[in-house]
Amino acid sequence: MKGMGESLRDHHSLQISKEDKLKVAINALPPNGGNGTYSYTKNSYFQRISSKVVKSNIEEEIYKKLDVKKLASTSNTIRIVDLGCATGPNTFMTIQNLLEAMKHKYQTQCSNTPTKIPEFHVFFNDQLSNDFNTLFTTLPQDIQYFAAGVPGSFHGRLFPESSLHFAYTSYAIHFLSKSPQELEEKNSPTWNKGRVHYTSASKEVVDAYAAQFANDVRDFLDARAKELVPGGMLVMVMQGIPNGMHHSDTVNGMMYDYMGSILMEIAKEGMFDESKVDSFNLPYYGPNPEEMKKLVETNGRFSIERMELTNPAPWLKSIRQIIPEWTFHVRASMEGTFTRQFGNEVTHEMFQRLIKQLTQNIELLETKLWDMTQLFVVLKRKE
Amino acid sequence: MKGMGESLRDHHSLQISKEDKLKVAINALPPNGGNGTYSYTKNSYFQRISSKVVKSNIEEEIYKKLDVKKLASTSNTIRIVDLGCATGPNTFMTIQNLLEAMKHKYQTQCSNTPTKIPEFHVFFNDQLSNDFNTLFTTLPQDIQYFAAGVPGSFHGRLFPESSLHFAYTSYAIHFLSKSPQELEEKNSPTWNKGRVHYTSASKEVVDAYAAQFANDVRDFLDARAKELVPGGMLVMVMQGIPNGMHHSDTVNGMMYDYMGSILMEIAKEGMFDESKVDSFNLPYYGPNPEEMKKLVETNGRFSIERMELTNPAPWLKSIRQIIPEWTFHVRASMEGTFTRQFGNEVTHEMFQRLIKQLTQNIELLETKLWDMTQLFVVLKRKE
Repeated sequence: MKGMGESLRDHHSLQISKEDKLKVAINALPPNGGNGTYSYTKNSYFQRISSKVVKSNIEEEIYKKLDVKKLASTSNTIRIVDLGCATGPNTFMTIQNLLEAMKHKYQTQCSNTPTKIPEFHVFFNDQLSNDFNTLFTTLPQDIQYFAAGVPGSFHGRLFPESSLHFAYTSYAIHFLSKSPQELEEKNSPTWNKGRVHYTSASKEVVDAYAAQFANDVRDFLDARAKELVPGGMLVMVMQGIPNGMHHSDTVNGMMYDYMGSILMEIAKEGMFDESKVDSFNLPYYGPNPEEMKKLVETNGRFSIERMELTNPAPWLKSIRQIIPEWTFHVRASMEGTFTRQFGNEVTHEMFQRLIKQLTQNIELLETKLWDMTQLFVVLKRKE
Repeated sequence: MKGMGESLRDHHSLQISKEDKLKVAINALPPNGGNGTYSYTKNSYFQRISSKVVKSNIEEEIYKKLDVKKLASTSNTIRIVDLGCATGPNTFMTIQNLLEAMKHKYQTQCSNTPTKIPEFHVFFNDQLSNDFNTLFTTLPQDIQYFAAGVPGSFHGRLFPESSLHFAYTSYAIHFLSKSPQELEEKNSPTWNKGRVHYTSASKEVVDAYAAQFANDVRDFLDARAKELVPGGMLVMVMQGIPNGMHHSDTVNGMMYDYMGSILMEIAKEGMFDESKVDSFNLPYYGPNPEEMKKLVETNGRFSIERMELTNPAPWLKSIRQIIPEWTFHVRASMEGTFTRQFGNEVTHEMFQRLIKQLTQNIELLETKLWDMTQLFVVLKRKE
């Protein structure tokens, strides 16, 4: 049931290319801000539960592999970033967990010498159009670290060279910096007619998406390789897919297919022209471990400490129990992307019909409940 | 004419005590956010011009006193903060100037050795209720530094120990963390009846304000002493007053007196109860150099490199030419403070009458045009 984790945090639908900074500042589509019914703040508890699934894995890696004592040796400050943090509260819980694990490791490492625990400087990063005001005003009151917000695309540099010790990113890097341009080229084999995603599309369409993802991850890893100190750790949690599995066999893939067909249905009813669906392509891509491994090796500056597919929601007994909440979550994350293309009315109608469609297909969805569609990756910056 | 610089950036009217964080998150009164008619972004060019007045002084101090090469020697990163940055664009210009001066100094210092220019990490700090969203989305596109926003009161710690190299604060630290409580105590000599400020008030009232300022500056300097590296620089520009000069003789003091008497006038007309004026005290204090010197010496961890009173607007030939713009600026900064106490209608009426009042007293105001009511202080963290 990766669907929940993934689609519910679809707030990176527009990453910023340098040339496009101003345009994006105006048009970018972060998750819904504020505190309202459809806000990300109020509709992100599925992600919170999902992140708990990887919590113990991360702690394990910190204990086993992170030399906190050495990292703190030069400045007595440990710098951590959550890349693609959205508006909270999930990011605050994650950071709290990371801090506790690192403190514990430090105390273990320094048990024989009376040492001062390092201070932590925590950076919350997201698109510059993210609602940082809400992020800041909801910061917990009892934080044991110094907090800062970092606006900007994580596909580029965000920090000075060798200044970071730990970078974390959850349900963020499967968001492409943009939908591949060639998907909109009529008469091309990459034209993605009548669909909003590569699910159930031709090989050419899937390849175009994969190429964009490879570009984005290359930029992401290049930037982090410069920013992290040697020995620094990079933890990534994202949408993923087992080698060889079909995208249309995942819960998310099914949902994207439903979205596309519902929109085509509404278009045929005359509410808008169906060419709007043809030219709309959700910028999400879930890689398989093999792909991801190759990208890390191509970069060459990280060792792979751990890479595995997990079930993002092992706690879930049935999809049935969460259909309405799930669509609320999806809506909190993706609404902006849809309304810009289709307007409020169509978007609202689409989400209404999506609930019905998901409910009607509940038996099929249930069979996919135990798929391993969350990719967990731990890298370490080579010395 | 310090008035412009000072009152126009009155966005620190509520600094955050730790206990009060949540309350302040809801009630805090930063300058008007966004981009509208009365926004700080659109109404802060007087501050911009004022800051130019000290620009060359700061450059001079950087060239003479700041060992940039040494500062960059450990990490090759120079960290700079603007404490109380508001929403821009002034803060971006200031940072740009600081960076250029530091780069120039570095090149001068390293002219014989081929060295890499350090990278700059710039932190923009203000209250957590500041409009960081506007700050971030208006960041210039061509910045040569890594940017981060730091929410929180500068009366407390904001950064890890010995992590900052240069701290700058302009028209911010004369804002008190709170109005002294005792000003609201009826039957006490510190009861500030019928006034909104200490201007023209009893010695007891002035003393209560001075004591609050001393407390706040003590906290401010304690925090900065920990955060700055030895040799790091702290530049402060603020409202000030020559030793022995009466507050009611300054342009700002006159304006506060007008505000008080206008509000009393409106109260007497029956729009609200005048006790609301008695319990309202603007949290601004402009120290004289002697006071400031003592506070720095009490802290003991900084050397005073420069301290001088300047005219904040030597470029201004007549106040007459700027009365309406001036009140727009005052309004952009102070509106929130007044509306919380008096509501929108009274506040609007007060500002309308203030324009008239200032215009009627233009001759008197003109005589104060050349007062030295801007305090410029350069400190260096002792080794």
